[in-house]
Formats: sequence, structure tokens, C-alpha cells
Amino acid sequence: MARIERDSLGEKELPDIAYYGVQTLRGKENFHITGIPMSSEPYFVKAFGYVKKAAAQANRDLGVLDAGIANAIIGACDRLIAGEMCDQFVTDFIQGGAGTSTNMNANEVIANMALESLGHAKGEYQYVNPNDHVNYGQSTNDVYPTAFRLALILRLESYLLALQALQAAFFAKSKDFERVLKMGRTHLQDAVPMSLGQEFNGWGTTMGEEVARLSEVRRLLQEINLGATAIGTSVTAASGYPALATRYLSDLTGIEFELAGDLVEATSDTGVYVQLSGNLKRTSAKLTKICNDIRLLASGPRCGFNEINLPQIQPGSSGDSRGRQPDQFFGDRARPDRDARRVGGAVATQRDGAGHHLCIVHVDLHDGKCGQQPAHKLRRWHYRQRRTHS
Amino acid sequence: MARIERDSLGEKELPDIAYYGVQTLRGKENFHITGIPMSSEPYFVKAFGYVKKAAAQANRDLGVLDAGIANAIIGACDRLIAGEMCDQFVTDFIQGGAGTSTNMNANEVIANMALESLGHAKGEYQYVNPNDHVNYGQSTNDVYPTAFRLALILRLESYLLALQALQAAFFAKSKDFERVLKMGRTHLQDAVPMSLGQEFNGWGTTMGEEVARLSEVRRLLQEINLGATAIGTSVTAASGYPALATRYLSDLTGIEFELAGDLVEATSDTGVYVQLSGNLKRTSAKLTKICNDIRLLASGPRCGFNEINLPQIQPGSSGDSRGRQPDQFFGDRARPDRDARRVGGAVATQRDGAGHHLCIVHVDLHDGKCGQQPAHKLRRWHYRQRRTHS
Amino acid sequence: MARIERDSLGEKELPDIAYYGVQTLRGKENFHITGIPMSSEPYFVKAFGYVKKAAAQANRDLGVLDAGIANAIIGACDRLIAGEMCDQFVTDFIQGGAGTSTNMNANEVIANMALESLGHAKGEYQYVNPNDHVNYGQSTNDVYPTAFRLALILRLESYLLALQALQAAFFAKSKDFERVLKMGRTHLQDAVPMSLGQEFNGWGTTMGEEVARLSEVRRLLQEINLGATAIGTSVTAASGYPALATRYLSDLTGIEFELAGDLVEATSDTGVYVQLSGNLKRTSAKLTKICNDIRLLASGPRCGFNEINLPQIQPGSSGDSRGRQPDQFFGDRARPDRDARRVGGAVATQRDGAGHHLCIVHVDLHDGKCGQQPAHKLRRWHYRQRRTHS
Amino acid sequence: MARIERDSLGEKELPDIAYYGVQTLRGKENFHITGIPMSSEPYFVKAFGYVKKAAAQANRDLGVLDAGIANAIIGACDRLIAGEMCDQFVTDFIQGGAGTSTNMNANEVIANMALESLGHAKGEYQYVNPNDHVNYGQSTNDVYPTAFRLALILRLESYLLALQALQAAFFAKSKDFERVLKMGRTHLQDAVPMSLGQEFNGWGTTMGEEVARLSEVRRLLQEINLGATAIGTSVTAASGYPALATRYLSDLTGIEFELAGDLVEATSDTGVYVQLSGNLKRTSAKLTKICNDIRLLASGPRCGFNEINLPQIQPGSSGDSRGRQPDQFFGDRARPDRDARRVGGAVATQRDGAGHHLCIVHVDLHDGKCGQQPAHKLRRWHYRQRRTHS
Repeated sequence: MARIERDSLGEKELPDIAYYGVQTLRGKENFHITGIPMSSEPYFVKAFGYVKKAAAQANRDLGVLDAGIANAIIGACDRLIAGEMCDQFVTDFIQGGAGTSTNMNANEVIANMALESLGHAKGEYQYVNPNDHVNYGQSTNDVYPTAFRLALILRLESYLLALQALQAAFFAKSKDFERVLKMGRTHLQDAVPMSLGQEFNGWGTTMGEEVARLSEVRRLLQEINLGATAIGTSVTAASGYPALATRYLSDLTGIEFELAGDLVEATSDTGVYVQLSGNLKRTSAKLTKICNDIRLLASGPRCGFNEINLPQIQPGSSGDSRGRQPDQFFGDRARPDRDARRVGGAVATQRDGAGHHLCIVHVDLHDGKCGQQPAHKLRRWHYRQRRTHS
Repeated sequence: MARIERDSLGEKELPDIAYYGVQTLRGKENFHITGIPMSSEPYFVKAFGYVKKAAAQANRDLGVLDAGIANAIIGACDRLIAGEMCDQFVTDFIQGGAGTSTNMNANEVIANMALESLGHAKGEYQYVNPNDHVNYGQSTNDVYPTAFRLALILRLESYLLALQALQAAFFAKSKDFERVLKMGRTHLQDAVPMSLGQEFNGWGTTMGEEVARLSEVRRLLQEINLGATAIGTSVTAASGYPALATRYLSDLTGIEFELAGDLVEATSDTGVYVQLSGNLKRTSAKLTKICNDIRLLASGPRCGFNEINLPQIQPGSSGDSRGRQPDQFFGDRARPDRDARRVGGAVATQRDGAGHHLCIVHVDLHDGKCGQQPAHKLRRWHYRQRRTHS
Repeated sequence: MARIERDSLGEKELPDIAYYGVQTLRGKENFHITGIPMSSEPYFVKAFGYVKKAAAQANRDLGVLDAGIANAIIGACDRLIAGEMCDQFVTDFIQGGAGTSTNMNANEVIANMALESLGHAKGEYQYVNPNDHVNYGQSTNDVYPTAFRLALILRLESYLLALQALQAAFFAKSKDFERVLKMGRTHLQDAVPMSLGQEFNGWGTTMGEEVARLSEVRRLLQEINLGATAIGTSVTAASGYPALATRYLSDLTGIEFELAGDLVEATSDTGVYVQLSGNLKRTSAKLTKICNDIRLLASGPRCGFNEINLPQIQPGSSGDSRGRQPDQFFGDRARPDRDARRVGGAVATQRDGAGHHLCIVHVDLHDGKCGQQPAHKLRRWHYRQRRTHS
Repeated sequence: MARIERDSLGEKELPDIAYYGVQTLRGKENFHITGIPMSSEPYFVKAFGYVKKAAAQANRDLGVLDAGIANAIIGACDRLIAGEMCDQFVTDFIQGGAGTSTNMNANEVIANMALESLGHAKGEYQYVNPNDHVNYGQSTNDVYPTAFRLALILRLESYLLALQALQAAFFAKSKDFERVLKMGRTHLQDAVPMSLGQEFNGWGTTMGEEVARLSEVRRLLQEINLGATAIGTSVTAASGYPALATRYLSDLTGIEFELAGDLVEATSDTGVYVQLSGNLKRTSAKLTKICNDIRLLASGPRCGFNEINLPQIQPGSSGDSRGRQPDQFFGDRARPDRDARRVGGAVATQRDGAGHHLCIVHVDLHDGKCGQQPAHKLRRWHYRQRRTHS
């Protein structure tokens, strides 16, 4: 079964089970850039739930949105926050239009959930309208970056936990190797003696610095432009809305968001994404260095440094393969029960991504439409981190 | 139901329906880098079919592989080439170990298909062995880059077709706009008059140059190191194998592959990927320039250049949105039937990806293990191109 | 006249007037990388004066360096700090060996100044030795990064002053243009009205954020590894030297330096340079955006936006050139006395360098030998800033 | 003594000995971007001599430029080609305005030389005018890129000679080391045996490929837009000028230049610079890999690979430094007379620059004003190459 929806450009047919609507469908048809739908980053969907809920609460309080409609919207948002309907976010991750398709995807899914909760059918937008009610007093230019920042904050939390676990693993090994004497090198030449523990301790220290730096950037993400509307003049928002919606968002998430002082500036300001990208690159550079060091220390066994052994986790492709392939070891997880000279595999999952340290965030300076990539990048990191916690 | 497979590191349980085996499973568990499985690039799977078939044919001819086993392998490869079993390629696109997991994924899927065709059960590797038979006389270090280059060549073909379609669209519009006079600008300042047709003609010319340059790089991809084995000394390959396998691969694909003269060099040479990346960046830079120009020419309508109109393809998110959003137009496809002053939408799909022109190929210089990214990049382009051809 | 000096590799002839010695000469002959001598960054020479003075003071206090020799070294350092002898720093800015040539250049120049102050001739290193006295208890691996960080801090000060001047200029213009109404745009399309003052105010706000962010990075530069020696084990330094030398350096410069807690880590940690580079890129991205906006607003006059006028500062090359070329305006300096609708030229000097925002700091991960580029980059900025202050 | 010159913006005082004039002085005052004057790249000055001579010859033949004036201009250009007056090119290497200041610097120096040759004083532009005579029928937008391409071609010649010398050095060592057996490694792990000669041979082969690829790009640089004038419509050039000036330029330089078929396209086409940059990056990546390999093979002596010895070329900074520092060896030149296991120093000078392989050419897509950086980069390479040829 299918239903028909209509917008200013005409009619389109939708599968009856779809909670998204005609504008989402247009966005899906217009943009095939990454092939990766927004649903692949659940934190981003959840973040839209929070932002749209805060907006509805503020608009209801300010008397510009009917309380019955507002409460239906809020109920729908709660379901997004709880993780429902994620598969309805079918818009491609990268798109033109500053994220309009993404915003409309959220507006339509929320509207249709609200409609059903009020006893209406999907698509009966005369009762709850995606543009006029769910998106009331909002612009893609304020809700998209606000949701995006919230999603980055949520994603950074798991990333920081993984870095802290790695730091702890290095410090633990550092104790184990405290009295293992080895050659210290400069320029790969024999220099002066040191302990293997000192080397591992240095890696732990340096991870700690990354956690500190990334935490600083995370705080910068808490400045938002909710209520700025199209160009930062708050022209379509109710008086008092920006501050009130921001307070609701802080309350809902437990994250202390701050409304930017200059909303015109904030609406085109993508500096924090450039900075976050720079900081992730910094962390990647360090992880790469550590992994290269480990690979070098594990070189050999006869014609190499052979200072540490790495656990075998995968055979080679040759029939008679008996050689070690340290690149493959980098997939392993921590095994504290193993030989003290084996490297904890927390390093492992990290390394895989380290090669990406050259990736650069694309910032479209004209549109203030950027940032998708760090989220994507963080998401990829997440994949790499998972086994660390298992 | 599940079956048990065993390798040098121990046993693992596999779903009975899986055509991949124990080593693929280890690879899948060890590497979670992009979350994108190899199956998402069907050309790469197909390319492995071609390479493994050429290898089996050569080994059979040289008498180092039993003809019955070889023919079963060849039959399995034909099914990969035909597009079957793509979903069995579960290995992550980026991994450690120079692509060993990918190579083993191919070896295991092919072995199990061959086993079934010979009346054996999956996993009975004593009859057809992934390492000893399917991978005979091969190393990941030669089959992976050979398959990768073939996949890039196949992918480039569809990309070049899209660029040629775009070129033709620009030339057609150039004729339409031959007598539309407009201001020519330097530094965005009014300079001297020109026709809109001259501007479109320039865009067509410049696309033609990209096609020419990319075709030159495509030819460079035809130099392969098949038969080089681990470090380029052909140590585990039968005498005569490199040349014979290369000839078979050329015959099978209709692409004139050339065996590198210095196999040691070729095995660590990633220059062509850097060059391809540079050329894609060049094309992206031009597409970005064209799209920025179009966006500028379409600015307005009252307070902008307003020299061309772009078709509306998506409404905005505001309830009362009547403004045009040219970024969204860039999703549109060619509409030759429309007003002559509308821009053919072939531009459209191109633009979406143009923002990626900063992407840099990661080249792991120690391992000669690189190149995954251009394929991925091309794949993304493919998504963008599709509607152009529809 | 020439004198002969000798080191472990043999003899070399030096011009008698040279204060540098045989090892500097070898470095100069061995490295021709940028063609830019260290003397082109006077802050870096000055920074070496401070670091070598602090080292000599600490070594004298700890009784490991003869007081007479130490005081002669200190006197020589004071001359470097005062700006003397800058032309004696002939080493190329980029080199192999983690900066050994640079460090030896400083050691030799200081030794020869000290020798003369004690009544000896240049080259009589038996009295004051570049390695054994000036470099006592030091390694290139600690003094080079310490001096480098100090030089960056000094250079950042002038850069931050320029950004603050730019911010003030934007805010001043913002007041002037408070009531100039204009079209606000999204995606270059007419959207909603705003004032030109709001636009300039946004640029001022965003510059203020850059100042805040760069000030945070500057603080990170204050963590140093003075006394770490070759690999961070302080093996050749006197007990207590690291803390004492750090304290002296803070006293001499008025900058609160902090000795790193983990000297092994700190000796290979280049994270702050990656971060500084990221932050400069962030600032560059914003300056580029602003300059692109200004260029766009000044487009026309008849066939463009034509919202602001820029002062003419250079004619074109055509005999009859009457067209405006806004790129050339970006060289202009502030002219507060001019027509209120002219843009303060502080913007100008900034823009020239904005194109460089893609430059990436090269980090040599094996050696911890990096960072020359940000200094160089800052130096270039300095050229651009100078006129702003005139 | 000083003279006064006047342009459309007013009067300026010039030192009497200056051959450049008022507009060069404005350019010098307006742009302080790199601090590196155009005179630091003599090939660029020489290239302007060739281009301006070809233009004058064509304009004389076409009867649009008085023969007496034309011949005086031609005589002045011959002196530039011969290397005279280089120090008069004071314009900063990077500037706004598509290179107008550079073009005017050339026009004014040529005009003043021509004036003196005709018995007039510098500045008497009524007899030979920089804009109306020297720049007749030209625009910065055609002469600058034409001169720039010629300069790149000239510079590439010396670079290619250096790469060929390096290739020959590797092949020679390959013969010497033909029977030196060593471990072949994959992933830094012991794999299968090979000869040291095979390794050096691979490096020679790979250098040969770079020479081939760069020669291909050099040919692309031969397409020029001479005569296109401001936007490619040849509006201010005499009929027949583009083809005739191109033929003269080919005759003068012995390089087969080709006039672009679509001058509108060619005037904004910067593709070849992006491609050249990509190719230089490719070469840099290979040089970096080779130098990293050499550094690794030279690691030790006791706790490293220790497969090759590198000659000592510089002591360390420590008083008791006896350690080897291979980074410093990379400054050394070829010493064919030395121990066969020492690496030819041609490698050396190359390596120093290899770290720069991340530099990216800035392409200003709006202005077609780019390319300065590759020249600068090549220039830096030149510094590095020089000793190779000594």
C-alpha cells in the first residue's frame, strides 16, 4: 500500500509504512553522495530527538505552539531519544542545502509519529505539520548545527573512554616492564640505555594529554546557535525562544549548553569543527607514532630489533606462512594474562585507524554547512574502539 | 547449523551457510575500521574472480596445480565474475596486513564453491585448499594490488562515461546560449563582454581535458606485478607463471595488462595511486570551480548576479520558504526539455562530490599497502553518477 | 684572513670574522633545503640566547660549570638577546639531525663571543668550548624544542596583537554601518534583511574567538623538556638541573614555563605543534571566508553585489584599465579617515596569507623533529602584519 | 637622487637607479606575503624576457607596434634573457591581482631599459610606455601564466637531470651490491632472502618512472594562452597575434608551445599545476620511502638492522658524541670512490626535501592565480640538487 503526499513541487507516492514523507523522499532522490544514510549514526538521530523536543517545549511555554500538538511532538521525540525509528532516517549523510533534507527527515518522522499518537493517519499534516509545527520558529541553519554538536559530544564520550582505557593499559605494562633494560635510540641509532617501562609510560602520558585536549574541544562544542533561524537574526522565532530552548536542551541532556552571544557570527562559524579535526589529527599522529614504534620494536625476529613480541592473531595467506605479521596483531585486544613482554592489544584497534591521520574535514565556508565528516570519522573510530571494551 | 574450521591458531565455529572460512572470520573480528565491507564494491569482488581464475589457468598449464582442482576453481571464479556470492565478502575495506584478510576471503569463498561443485562439503579443505590450491604460487602482495588495479580500471570506466556526458551537456547548452550576452569578470569585477555560450563551452572543454588526463592514468594502472610473490622475487611461483598469468588476465578482461619489468620495485610501488588521487583532485577542483561559478551566476534573484535560473528540486524547511536554494538544485538530473536558460542537471550530481576534493589517499609507505581509498572514492562517485545515466 | 678549526671529522677553514665555527660550516654545507637561514627569524636567535643563558646560570649554580666561563657565556647570551650577531646564524631553517646544526651554530657563536670577552681569539676552544661548556648537560633534543617553543610564543604575541587590531577595526565599522540595511543571504540566495553592521560585528566576534583559541595554545607551548637530554632520561645533566634551568628561563623571559612531568614523553611529543598548526588553519579559514565575503560584497559595480566599495590601491596592467581589482585592495592598510563605507585595511594584510590555510606542518614522527614550519609560517604572517602596526 | 613617477593613483618617488617604476613600487608596498622577491627565481625573470620579446616581435610584424619601439623592447628583453637586471624584480612572489604587480614589474624594467637604449631617461614613458607599448595587446591573465609555465619547464629540466643522476647512482650501487645477500622483509618481519643489489635496483627503477611521469606533465605545460587577454576573448590583441606570438615564443626557446584551442577555458584552467603538484608529491613520497628505508637499514650499529653503513658527515652536539646520526648523512654528496657498502650521496640531498611531500599547492579557483608554489618548491629542490652536480 502506498500513500500520496504533496509539497510545493508536486505529489509523490510513499510506502505506507514510511514515517518519513515527501520532502525526505526528494532529498533521498536528489543526494547520493556517500551512500551512507543518517541512520548509521544513531547519536545524530537521538540528538535531533533532543533538539526538537527542546524546541517544542519552549514554543509551548511561549504560547506559540498549541499544547496538544506540542505534547504529541514531545512524545514522538522521546521515542527517537529512546532509539526508536532510527531506520526512518534515510537521508544521505552529506548533502547540499546546509542539511535541509536531514532536518526535514526529522520533522516528517516526528510529525507522523505525533499524528498516529493523536489518532490520525500518517500524512494528515493538517493536524501536525512538519514545517509549521515541528519546525516552528526554527531553521535548518540553527537546528542542524545544534544537533550535530550534540551528536559529536555524545560520540566523543565513547572515544575518550577508549583513549583512557588505552592509557591505563600502557601504564599497567609500564609497571610490568619497569626493569626490562633496552637501548634508547636517537635517529634510529644506538644512544643511551632506558627501560622498556619508561617507553610504555611515555605512551600512557601522551594518551593522557590527548584526553585533556579533546575534553577542551568538547567544551567548545557546547556553544550553540539554537533560535538563530536563517541568518542569525532570530527573525522567525518567538521572543525569548533562543534562551528558553537552550535551557531545555541543557536540562534534557545534562550537558551545559550555552547560547552564543553573537548569533549572526555563530550561524556561519565552523571553527570548532576545524579545531576538532585538528585535535583528532593530533591524536591520530600520536597513535600512528606509537604503532610505528611498536611495529619497529617487534621487527625481526632474527634480522630486526626484536625487543617485544606481539601475540599472533591471524595467519598469513601463504600455504607455508610461518612469518609474523605485526600489522595483523594490531587488531588484538588487551590480554593482561599473557606474557609480560607481549603488548596489550588495546593499542591494536587504535592503530588501524591511525593511517587516516591525513583526512581533512571539508568545510564549506559559504554555507556554514560542514562537520559531517568529523561525526563520520568518530563513528569509524567507534567501530575500532568497540572491541577494546568487550 | 554450524561447522568448525581450524587454522594454525586454533578452531572457530562458522555458520553453515557461510562460504567464507576461519581466516576470513578472524579478519572480520580483528579489523573494524570503516564498517564498510568489501562487498560494497562489487567491482573489487569481480576483479578477484578474474585474478584468481587467471592464476588457476596458468598454474594448471604449468602443471603445478591438478587440472581437476584448477577447473573447479575456475568454475567458482566464473561465478564471482558473474556477480554471485558478493555478500560473502565480509572483510572490512581497510585493514592491516597488506590485504591478507581480503585475499583469504576470496581464497576461502572460491575454495568452498569449488568443493561443492566437486561434491564435497564446505570446509573439506583437504580436497580444495584456500592456501595451497586457490592461492598457489601467489602472495597477497601480488594478487591484492593486481585485483585492486583491475577494480579501479573498471570503476574509472563508468566515471569517465559520466564526465563525457557532462561534457556533452555543456557543449549542448553552449550552442543554446551562443547569443546570450553577459558581463565577463576578472576578480569578480565587471571587465569585458562575453557570451554565456562561451562560458559553457569552456566548461565542456575543461571536462574533455579531465577525460584525457584520467585516461592516461588508467593506462598506468595496467602495469601489474602478478607473480611477484612476497617481495618481488617470485620465489614461490612456478617458472613462467608471472608472464602466463598476466597474459590470461589480459585475455579474460580484454584489458592489456603489462607485467612490470622490475618486480621488486613494482611490489612496493604505490606511485600510480598517488597520481590517480592527484588527478581525481584535479577533476574535483574543476568541478568545484564550475559549481561555484554556477551558484554565483544563479545568485539573487534581486540582490545577486541572477544570470541563470536553476530548476527547483526541493523546498526549504521553513513553513513559508519561497527562497531558492541552489545547493539543492545540484542534485537534479539533466532536463533537456526545459527552458534553455536552465542548467543541465548533469552538473548537479557532480557537484555533490566536489567538496571531497581535499581527500588525500593514505599511502602506507612501508607496506606498499594502499589504494583502498581511491576505490572507495570512486565508488562514492559512482553513487553520484548513477542518476546521470538514468 | 682565515682561521682553521678542527672537529672529529677533520679541519675546515673559516673566515676570520665568522663567529660561527667548523660544525656550523658543515651544517651549512650539508643542508640546502629552504635557502632561508635561521637569521631570518630573529625571535628564534633571541630564544637561543635565553635558553643558553638559563642553562649556564643553572650549571654555574650547581657547580658543574666554572663560574668565569659561565659568566662569559651569560654575557654572550645577553648580546644575542639584545639582537646582536643575528647574521651569524647561517644554518638553513630546515635540516636533518633534529636541529643539531642549529644548536651548534648557537654554541659556536656564543663560545666565540665569550672567548673574545675573556681576551682569547676566536676558535681557542680550549678556554670556552661549544660542546663541553656552552652545551654542557644539554642535548639538541631538549634545547632546540625549548628555544623553538619560546620563539613561537614571542611570535604569537605580535600575531595576536594584529588579530586584535583587526577585531577592533571590524567592531568600529560595525558601529558605522549599524543602520545600513542590506539583504541577508543563504546559499547566495536572497533570504531576509539584516544590517551591514551585523555582518561586520560577526567578523569582529569571530576574530575574538580566534584570539581566545590561540591564547590557549600559547599556554600549551609553555610546557618544556629542558634538561631532558638525548632521550628524556636527563642522563648527562646535573642533578636538579632541569627544574633550576626551567626556573631561570621563566625568570629571564617573564613567561611561566613548566617542566614536563614525563621527560621521555615530552622529548618526542610534537602534539602542540600539530595543534598550533590546526588553530592557525582555523584562523586562516575564517580570514579566507571574510575576505571572500568582502570580495563578493564588492563585486560589480554594475553586474555584481556592489554593497561595499573598497579603496583603489593599485592600477591594472592594461593601458586603459579602469576596472577595480579587489584582490589588490587586500594589500591596503587601515585608513580610519576614509569614507565610512570603505573597509578598514587591516583586513587587507590578513587576506594575503589566507590562501595558505592548506599548509600542513610536517611532523617527523620518528625523531620528534618538527615544528620549523609553524615558525616559518608565523614569520610570514609577521611580514603581513607589519604594516597593520605602522 | 630620486625621480618622480605618476600613475592613475598619484605620484611616487623612486630611487634614480631603479629600473622598476611606480606600479612596481605600489605592488611592493601592498604585498608582503612571503618576503621572497621574484628575483630569487631567475628562471621566472628570464621567462618574462622571452614572453615579452615574443609579444613585441608579433606586434611589430602585425604593424600595431612601432618598429623602433619594438626593437628597443626586444633588445631589453635580450638582456633579461641573458640574466641581467634580475635584482630589479622586487615584487613579492605571492600577491593578489593574478600577478599584475609581477607583470608590471617586467613591463617597467623593460621600458626603462628600452628608454635608455634610445637615449631617453628612465621614467620618460611618453617614448616607451610600460602599459601601452611593452604590454601592448596583453593581459596579466595571459602573459603571467605563459611566463610561469615556461619558468616551470626550465626548472623541471634541472630537476629531471638530478633525478636521472640519482637513478644512475642507484643502478651503479646495484651492480656493486649484486651478490650481497640480505633478509627481505614484509611488515618489518623476516620473510625471504634477496640481494642488496635488488633493493638498490628497485630504487633506480622507481626513479626512472618518476622521470617518465614528470616528463609527461612537462609536455602539458607547453599549452599556453598567450594572446587570450583578460578573459580569453582576445579582445585587446591584434588579429593573428595569439598564433604569431606563440610561434615566436617556440622559436626563441626551442620548446614547442601550443596555443590552447579554447582560450576562455585556458585562461582559468589551473589543472596542470594541480597535476604537477600531484606528481611532485608522488616523487616526494618515493624519495621519502627510500630515505626511510635507508635510515632503517643503517639503524644500529648493535641494536638495529645494521645492513648498510652511511658516511659520517657531521658530529653531534654532545661533547662525547660518538653515535651516528643518519639524518645528517642525508646531506652528503656522491662519493663513488668510497667503500662499496656506503650509499651514494645523491640520495642525500634528495632526502632533505622529502619531508615536504605534504605541501599542497594553493589554487585560487576564482582567479586562475596560482602556481607560484610549484615554482617555489622546484626552486627549493634546486638548492638541494646543486651539490649533486658539483
